[in-house]
Amino acid sequence: MKEQKVYRSGILLYPGVEILNVAGPAEVFAATENFNVVSIGINTEPVKANKGFTLVPDYSLEDCPYLDVLVIPGGAIEKIQSNNDVLLWLQAMSIKTNLLLSVCTGAFLLAAAGLLDGKTYTTHHQFIDKLQSLAPYGKAIRNLRYTDSGNIIATAGVSAGIEGALHVVRRLTGAGTALNTASRIEYPYWQQASQGVHKTTIAAPGY
Amino acid sequence: MKEQKVYRSGILLYPGVEILNVAGPAEVFAATENFNVVSIGINTEPVKANKGFTLVPDYSLEDCPYLDVLVIPGGAIEKIQSNNDVLLWLQAMSIKTNLLLSVCTGAFLLAAAGLLDGKTYTTHHQFIDKLQSLAPYGKAIRNLRYTDSGNIIATAGVSAGIEGALHVVRRLTGAGTALNTASRIEYPYWQQASQGVHKTTIAAPGY
Repeated sequence: MKEQKVYRSGILLYPGVEILNVAGPAEVFAATENFNVVSIGINTEPVKANKGFTLVPDYSLEDCPYLDVLVIPGGAIEKIQSNNDVLLWLQAMSIKTNLLLSVCTGAFLLAAAGLLDGKTYTTHHQFIDKLQSLAPYGKAIRNLRYTDSGNIIATAGVSAGIEGALHVVRRLTGAGTALNTASRIEYPYWQQASQGVHKTTIAAPGY
Repeated sequence: MKEQKVYRSGILLYPGVEILNVAGPAEVFAATENFNVVSIGINTEPVKANKGFTLVPDYSLEDCPYLDVLVIPGGAIEKIQSNNDVLLWLQAMSIKTNLLLSVCTGAFLLAAAGLLDGKTYTTHHQFIDKLQSLAPYGKAIRNLRYTDSGNIIATAGVSAGIEGALHVVRRLTGAGTALNTASRIEYPYWQQASQGVHKTTIAAPGY
């Protein structure tokens, strides 16, 4: 009998991270058979999330295990987007990890690490022009719940992280599994949302 | 000039609580002007949420401040539904607090405290018959995202907590505020979901 692969998803935690950006994908992966989910801090100190929730990371950047999916949630991203340890780690993870999923303003960290070059991407509707200016060698897409561009999946604001994670489940394990997960977390909007994906990898200017 | 009321919402944390049940309402309240959100543990020890997330409560049952809304998220509820300290606290809170919001299997804790008597209520679709059997003096309603029955708002599974919290915002501060919050967290399903509320208080048998 073939052994079933177990997919490990990891979620980056940092001070000021938005709790729903973390919890949407965490719950989706936790509710999916053959997925587990861990959290990764810059170190393993407790992290004050946005608006008062404190989370304790399972791993630090240094001892983070192999991940199939790395989630970059949005939040007070400006505090870490010039942290070289984080950016170098992200660049390394983008090679080792199957998929990167940014939620909301998490895409700004991917931009800072140069990982949006040649990609389509999206973010919270209030910040899309700013993100385009920071990632000029890729293309910001409006009015989508998420974009899928090679190994980078980027979602719109906050609650769209649920759909981005369901899309990850679909890519890795198939549409049936994603539907089961959506039912388990009682998310009746998955089928309509799943029509809204934009799949392209654009030719980046100058490439 | 009239001073604007600030609403304080509190979320009960306990071992095995489902992270999205916590984070959905937390994010909604955090994204709403004139709302803040705190977390309450049985004590203030760090709490292992479902599937590995650790949360640190702001308050314990004993030093919990006045709340306008108390959220009871679902999760491993069987571990606390026979805890008398929790049940007595809940009964006291149901008198002091403006609204109680249960998410998913959180309704089982309200049932254990006798707070669903004479109410309509709902829960995760897999558990609705079981809940009806535990709260026979109230009425379980199927196929709704949430019920509103006096001071008790109960939602369907997991992600429906987002809508239950948006409904709380609407009840306390008006439909415009709830729409603004839904936009801020990019939750495009609020308008369609907000049609699905069932508002009744039934006459309980034997009353």
